[in-house]
Amino acid sequence: MPQPTDRLRELTEGYLAELVLASDLGSLEEPMRHALGGKRVRPVLCLATADAVGGRVEDALPAAAAVELVHSFSLVHDDLPPLDDDRERRGAPSVWAQYGEATAILAGDALLVEAIRLALMYPTSAVARELVDATLAMIGGQQLDLEGGVALDRLHALKTGALFSAAVMCGLWAVEVPPDEHPPWRAFAAELGPLFQVVDDVLDGDGYVLEVGEDGARRLADEVAGRAQARLAEIDADTDVLAEIVDGLAVRTA
Amino acid sequence: MPQPTDRLRELTEGYLAELVLASDLGSLEEPMRHALGGKRVRPVLCLATADAVGGRVEDALPAAAAVELVHSFSLVHDDLPPLDDDRERRGAPSVWAQYGEATAILAGDALLVEAIRLALMYPTSAVARELVDATLAMIGGQQLDLEGGVALDRLHALKTGALFSAAVMCGLWAVEVPPDEHPPWRAFAAELGPLFQVVDDVLDGDGYVLEVGEDGARRLADEVAGRAQARLAEIDADTDVLAEIVDGLAVRTA
Repeated sequence: MPQPTDRLRELTEGYLAELVLASDLGSLEEPMRHALGGKRVRPVLCLATADAVGGRVEDALPAAAAVELVHSFSLVHDDLPPLDDDRERRGAPSVWAQYGEATAILAGDALLVEAIRLALMYPTSAVARELVDATLAMIGGQQLDLEGGVALDRLHALKTGALFSAAVMCGLWAVEVPPDEHPPWRAFAAELGPLFQVVDDVLDGDGYVLEVGEDGARRLADEVAGRAQARLAEIDADTDVLAEIVDGLAVRTA
Repeated sequence: MPQPTDRLRELTEGYLAELVLASDLGSLEEPMRHALGGKRVRPVLCLATADAVGGRVEDALPAAAAVELVHSFSLVHDDLPPLDDDRERRGAPSVWAQYGEATAILAGDALLVEAIRLALMYPTSAVARELVDATLAMIGGQQLDLEGGVALDRLHALKTGALFSAAVMCGLWAVEVPPDEHPPWRAFAAELGPLFQVVDDVLDGDGYVLEVGEDGARRLADEVAGRAQARLAEIDADTDVLAEIVDGLAVRTA
């Protein structure tokens, strides 16, 4: 029987809390841990995927944590004054607002490298490769965002979609699902970034809401959620918890 | 017969010039290539190591390029205004001075991730692991430098020594030298960062020069160079070109 999302979230929190960072990082540990708050959407997705195929959830924990660290790295750098200039993140000061810009740049770098270190714990380097490709997409997406004038779909695919997709795929690699079973998973994973982003825009009143109105954006979210569920239904695995996660992403209010 | 350093440098330049960056990076390619200038000290060291053990130099090119990209990443971020605030690098505008701070942050991130991507081309993940450990040391060293009050030896071991060491070790991993033959190489590699840094301080008139005077720093450089040559002499390989590189590091004037 698959483990419910609350349990997967607790496992993630426990793993992150006990994560031993490289001793060379010294005082960067505090700003790095400050950056590691969040709802754990991506690591829970990673663990639920491993669970759905009958893998040991514990085996996917380093991959799940790696995905979360990449997410945190991207937020720390994106919040910096030359980029989004956000002083707040999750109701607390952002890393640069709390620790200064120099330390925030270095803490972001360190989160990224620690993520790769976690991904490299597996016998296969596919976990690290998956993460690297997603990270390159995110960085490219952020640069496109700076330049402006890019279609929202393209922007979100890079900035949000790539890492959601990597969360699922890393869950598969972590418990050694053979590559010939990956295609339906990749098709499912590709719907998650758009779903997350459309709902985000509804909650923030920007992005798609400005393009198609709030009702239009809500309809779009329902459509994408339906497509994600349909893709999931095509997969031969115990996908109940993943279906619950998709529902949760569609109706979330924060 | 080992290949001379000029040839190794040309191979590095050729490989870097033809390196295909992730298409998702888009317009970050220009600032990334701008950042990739330099004397190629580390990649040449990596290739010369692979050559010394009878490996194919070409097989070490991705590893050598990865080391150089990590070096470039660190310079791009270190030059930023909140860190060293350097507007110039190698007689040209630094990346942030030329392209803006936001793009420089992203270009540095991208160089780091591309470096890992190159390192992951090998069947063994040891190349990537070596690079990750060195990068964590460099980031920690930069943070210690911000905080001040740290002994120069410790600072340089982190900021400079770790990547010099990784250059040698990645050369070994790239051509599959078995780990039981690594210890004398690691002992040799450990002398290179200090050698590079002491000479750097003599050229810049800072660091060790402020601690022990110019003559003292020059004597220190000769001592370290002698130790590096002694370590090298203990290695059973064709180390002529590496000995030449050590001599070059000791007497360099730029």
